[in-house]
Amino acid sequence: MIREANEEAVRRLKDSSPRLVDIRKAGDVLRDFDRMTILHAGPPITYERMCASMQQAVHAVIRYEGLADSWEEAAALAASGKIRFAPCHSRGCVGPMTGVTSYSMPLLVVRNETYGNEAYSTINEGAGDVIRFGACTENTIKRLKWIETVLAPALKKVIDRMGGIDLSAIMSQALSMGDELHMRNIASSHVFLHRICAVLSEVCEGEVLSEILHFLTSKNDQFFLNFAMAANKSAADAADGIPHSTIVSAMARNGVEIGIRISGLPGQWFTAPAPLVDGLYFPGHSVADANPDIGDSAIMETGGFGAMAMAAAPAIVRLLGIPDTGKAYAFTEEMRRITDGEHTSYTIPGQNFAGCPVGIDIMKVVETGIVPGLNTAIMSREPGVGMVGAGLSRVPFECFAKALIAYDEALQREKAAG
Amino acid sequence: MIREANEEAVRRLKDSSPRLVDIRKAGDVLRDFDRMTILHAGPPITYERMCASMQQAVHAVIRYEGLADSWEEAAALAASGKIRFAPCHSRGCVGPMTGVTSYSMPLLVVRNETYGNEAYSTINEGAGDVIRFGACTENTIKRLKWIETVLAPALKKVIDRMGGIDLSAIMSQALSMGDELHMRNIASSHVFLHRICAVLSEVCEGEVLSEILHFLTSKNDQFFLNFAMAANKSAADAADGIPHSTIVSAMARNGVEIGIRISGLPGQWFTAPAPLVDGLYFPGHSVADANPDIGDSAIMETGGFGAMAMAAAPAIVRLLGIPDTGKAYAFTEEMRRITDGEHTSYTIPGQNFAGCPVGIDIMKVVETGIVPGLNTAIMSREPGVGMVGAGLSRVPFECFAKALIAYDEALQREKAAG
Repeated sequence: MIREANEEAVRRLKDSSPRLVDIRKAGDVLRDFDRMTILHAGPPITYERMCASMQQAVHAVIRYEGLADSWEEAAALAASGKIRFAPCHSRGCVGPMTGVTSYSMPLLVVRNETYGNEAYSTINEGAGDVIRFGACTENTIKRLKWIETVLAPALKKVIDRMGGIDLSAIMSQALSMGDELHMRNIASSHVFLHRICAVLSEVCEGEVLSEILHFLTSKNDQFFLNFAMAANKSAADAADGIPHSTIVSAMARNGVEIGIRISGLPGQWFTAPAPLVDGLYFPGHSVADANPDIGDSAIMETGGFGAMAMAAAPAIVRLLGIPDTGKAYAFTEEMRRITDGEHTSYTIPGQNFAGCPVGIDIMKVVETGIVPGLNTAIMSREPGVGMVGAGLSRVPFECFAKALIAYDEALQREKAAG
Repeated sequence: MIREANEEAVRRLKDSSPRLVDIRKAGDVLRDFDRMTILHAGPPITYERMCASMQQAVHAVIRYEGLADSWEEAAALAASGKIRFAPCHSRGCVGPMTGVTSYSMPLLVVRNETYGNEAYSTINEGAGDVIRFGACTENTIKRLKWIETVLAPALKKVIDRMGGIDLSAIMSQALSMGDELHMRNIASSHVFLHRICAVLSEVCEGEVLSEILHFLTSKNDQFFLNFAMAANKSAADAADGIPHSTIVSAMARNGVEIGIRISGLPGQWFTAPAPLVDGLYFPGHSVADANPDIGDSAIMETGGFGAMAMAAAPAIVRLLGIPDTGKAYAFTEEMRRITDGEHTSYTIPGQNFAGCPVGIDIMKVVETGIVPGLNTAIMSREPGVGMVGAGLSRVPFECFAKALIAYDEALQREKAAG
């Protein structure tokens, strides 16, 4: 019974075909959502318990939405109880790092063509003073407005003219070009630009076109991450809610807690304190400056990418603080021990085109004691500083143990009832 | 004495810094060149001895230059003795496959910033009925005219506005994205587009801009090859002419013969019959359809790329007909046994960022019996068919043996004279 359920969940993760079909305003596309609702990364958290950088990102979007005219007013409104906070995941959405998402933001609309469901993510803001790192300035708000009024409408026209964009093809291509698609998206971002630029030049022109091309090509090598995240969310949601499946359907961190969900117990979070990240810190920074792990981007590992696909991206390991690139191969092999399947369309050239390991099974995690790794950026615990490094975090064993206990209890209740 | 000479030659191969500085008409930039001179790939060959596809490419450029109005007239002029044929290499130039290069063609001008010398190559024509594969139609000539009158002037403006383009940075980046830069240039071509596209949108617009972007992004994943070839020619020329050096300074094939040159005996070719290529043939084709090996693109292996850098591009080996991608690592390791150095700026992530093996030493080749491999496209022996596969060829031992004998004789003469 469990085996069949897990086979079905893994099949859905593997068979999903994510396609970018539209860009739409969050307020128009998300269920149970209004201008007073703000989404955040990870499992549920109150404004008071949020880390300082996530709070600052909240203040920035309150100003971006025109709900406050100053940082002080924004902070007061955030703490007033008038704003409703909810995880991105609760609305079919995923956001990197703070993941803060608000009403007016244009969202990537990704349709899982195999199963018909949709998933969403914001458009990547690029580097510097960005809400995902909680490093917010007046420029942050200006850039969000530019994304909303200039970039998103142009990309929407491109998507329309191209009849949608097959994201799985880009992801597959990028794996053969050294991306693991979590901390390394340079190939996917280049391939995306390559596929759209000719059409982009047909739907806009002059300064607008040049501005967009400069934005896409200046320090923006993680641009595709948000597309890949929404793609994986669309696959993970299709694999969620299969009775009796012990396959992980979400992993996410809010900077205070990390949580996982499993397919057989939809909507429930199994949490532990978010870990600090072992990695390579920028000069002048150390783990003492680091915020605990944050972001919905662990949806990449949930779907078989990132640390799971480390072997596709040997160049990544140095960025994560691992000197021996051979470890990239060993790491992916380790992850095969806690997964139930291998992708067929997402393969690793350096491993004879073996599929990326996919379908983390909490039973295998508990049995082996091996926990999934997450390739991740590291955010400062001081708001306003932004990224301070990159590394490899490990999802605490506690999450899997809690999930398995809850699963057993549910099974017992079912038997007692049945 | 020999050791010091070889150290100097290898240092020059490693220290070279190729920069794209201009695009200029062949007739304006090549020495000893006029409208009645046509360059070809490989060592010297007469028109009569050329393979049929190279002859057809010659006919096509005769028409492109307006020297004949029909294919028949062009063939007659080619055979008349009025056209002077010379190797690209004899004019500081390199051309892929047939390598046929004529007076009006815009050439990439690559300056070796370290040593001040320049090297040249044509602009890649894309796929299909192209002169490099000797598959020539009316469309071939039309496309050459478009490259001359539309693409080249736009790229020249981009280069001017950017103050030149550092090719070594693109090549280094591409190695970390799965290219070996001979048969796999998808990353380098994407990175090149990424770097120029915003500026391109500032120097041209409307239909011209869209046409150029469509050309650069449609079946044109080898676009960067010509840039990389000119870059390596600029390095190889800097390493050429060092007295007593036994380092290879050129390898090239004309479809009938393959030849190598060594630094200590500049200008001399040591030839053997061009080999047939072991590889993966397109459906319906076999080695029986193949022309013997052709093209100046072996300048890539001369400079430490292509088959020498196989380990950077495990995905390439299947295209070459090798089932086990692990062989990519073994192949680069084998090549380290016949080279005198390793690049410092061109490294292989999957081998702990070890440098690509560079500086093929004919003494090591003769000592070990290991000959350099060449990653290569395979051209049909029937003119008009074009590419029929891809594979790995091996430079015949005979070339190295001949070179070493000539080297020894020169040394004896020098001793006798001295």
